[in-house]
Amino acid sequence: MTKITDMIGIKYPIFQGGMAWVADHHIAAAVSNAGGLGIIGCGGADENWIRDQIHKCRELTDKPFGVNVMLMNPRAPQIAEVLAEEKVAVVTTGAGSAGKFIPMWKEAGIIVVPVVPSVAMAKKMEKDGADAVIAEGTESGGHVGELTTMCLVPQVIDAVSIPVIAAGGIADGRGVAAAFAMGAEAVQCGTVFCASEEVNIHQNYKDMIIKAKDRSTQVTGRKAGAPVRQIKNQLTKKFQELEDRNASFEEIESLGVGALRRAVVDGDLDNGTFMAGQIAGMITEIKPAKQIIEEMFEQANKILSAAGPVC
Amino acid sequence: MTKITDMIGIKYPIFQGGMAWVADHHIAAAVSNAGGLGIIGCGGADENWIRDQIHKCRELTDKPFGVNVMLMNPRAPQIAEVLAEEKVAVVTTGAGSAGKFIPMWKEAGIIVVPVVPSVAMAKKMEKDGADAVIAEGTESGGHVGELTTMCLVPQVIDAVSIPVIAAGGIADGRGVAAAFAMGAEAVQCGTVFCASEEVNIHQNYKDMIIKAKDRSTQVTGRKAGAPVRQIKNQLTKKFQELEDRNASFEEIESLGVGALRRAVVDGDLDNGTFMAGQIAGMITEIKPAKQIIEEMFEQANKILSAAGPVC
Repeated sequence: MTKITDMIGIKYPIFQGGMAWVADHHIAAAVSNAGGLGIIGCGGADENWIRDQIHKCRELTDKPFGVNVMLMNPRAPQIAEVLAEEKVAVVTTGAGSAGKFIPMWKEAGIIVVPVVPSVAMAKKMEKDGADAVIAEGTESGGHVGELTTMCLVPQVIDAVSIPVIAAGGIADGRGVAAAFAMGAEAVQCGTVFCASEEVNIHQNYKDMIIKAKDRSTQVTGRKAGAPVRQIKNQLTKKFQELEDRNASFEEIESLGVGALRRAVVDGDLDNGTFMAGQIAGMITEIKPAKQIIEEMFEQANKILSAAGPVC
Repeated sequence: MTKITDMIGIKYPIFQGGMAWVADHHIAAAVSNAGGLGIIGCGGADENWIRDQIHKCRELTDKPFGVNVMLMNPRAPQIAEVLAEEKVAVVTTGAGSAGKFIPMWKEAGIIVVPVVPSVAMAKKMEKDGADAVIAEGTESGGHVGELTTMCLVPQVIDAVSIPVIAAGGIADGRGVAAAFAMGAEAVQCGTVFCASEEVNIHQNYKDMIIKAKDRSTQVTGRKAGAPVRQIKNQLTKKFQELEDRNASFEEIESLGVGALRRAVVDGDLDNGTFMAGQIAGMITEIKPAKQIIEEMFEQANKILSAAGPVC
């Protein structure tokens, strides 16, 4: 039992990251049914899509699940209202400050857990009434901050008194054990669930994760102020070329339009953006979500139970 | 007792990073006397300087200590010979492949431990006869790779059978405990020893570490293929400006010439390069090396002893 499993009423202290396009009700329900916290990712979708996803998820599970809101989504205010109406168990937020929506969500009895890339944002979220924060390291897939999990997690823990969930670079029991050793109360994993049987993405995406080596990911968009970690392919080469010749923000952005959809839906190996964390290199097999979670915590519990003084 | 403390004959499974300009015999002897492995960093120095440093270190300690060779140093072959002649206990290497020197060092009874940024380099070093490897994450100060400690350490452990030492992002017992939870046999720390009493650097450098926040470091030189993590100041702004306008490699390089010396020796806040890891934000006090090490392992042992199943 950790503060997080107790707060939410789940068996395993693990959140499945609310990845845009990737995390729909299929994987969310599978993770929640397995005893973790499944999360539906809104990404750039609108409020009607997310309402439908919530209803579909409830048909598949009676366990708590969450929804991730990307705050840069222009429909975020409407989505925020739907989440309050639907009284989802947990809301996680990314890409901005959740502050203005927190009172409405708390009023609806929702547990609010923003994803934060820095100490300053963690402190702001605590002040604004968040119940916990997810400290997400730069090794994660998709939109990333600069601090690594090893550096971010303890510094956030020192700065806030609400529970901290570690994200970034965790895909097995060793990562879980390390996160708890640092003082985290739970972990959030994204990439490993892209290699699950239930996740509703193109097989080519899953295969990209399985084939990835340690150095297979790259961050593009740093210069434009929108860094995104993804698996190297023809598209990342094009991004790199544009960045190297100081192409305009518009030109770079236009290359990215629809690229995540091309990866997730079409499995377009050359023109899709296959967002994944650096830990993809460690993932070699597609498994059911239940097996992923059970093996992860069996290993973590074994490590933590056997641990003792090192000198 | 870990494989590393046993192999080298030290009390605490900790290496002090062999930082160029920073790590001379003062800090190396202090760390070795405290029961860790002190390391003198050659950086760009020549073989006479390093011979002198080894002799001075032996005057201050009868415990094992090491020397770090930066393989890009044009005098690396001469330095390598001096190390074999002097039969130092341990040699660590960075910025290149140590392969060609390993037979000579092994002949001299030296324990050889290359710093590696990737699985491929770790495998190569094992094949070439290294006794262990230091898997160093991108959160480290100075010259860095791309993989974070959380992602690099387990992937390297899976790839080699020699012991793995975790480096990057470790400055207290939580980081040590996390490294051991991932399967490391020791840790290497750099930045925290820049905030030691014994380290022979300008007070301004120490103060920069103490004042640093979580987001105070920046990597410059990525585009030029020579990424270096350092504390943000006027110099990093100038580097950024040059990189943003695609300045020539020569122009960027000329800005860096002598910059580390200006930081370490002159304490030049505006024009020096104050190399430090992201974990600098967690370091708030200057302490004797002995106290740093003892507190770190007291905390780590407490965490690891108290650890148990999390669900």
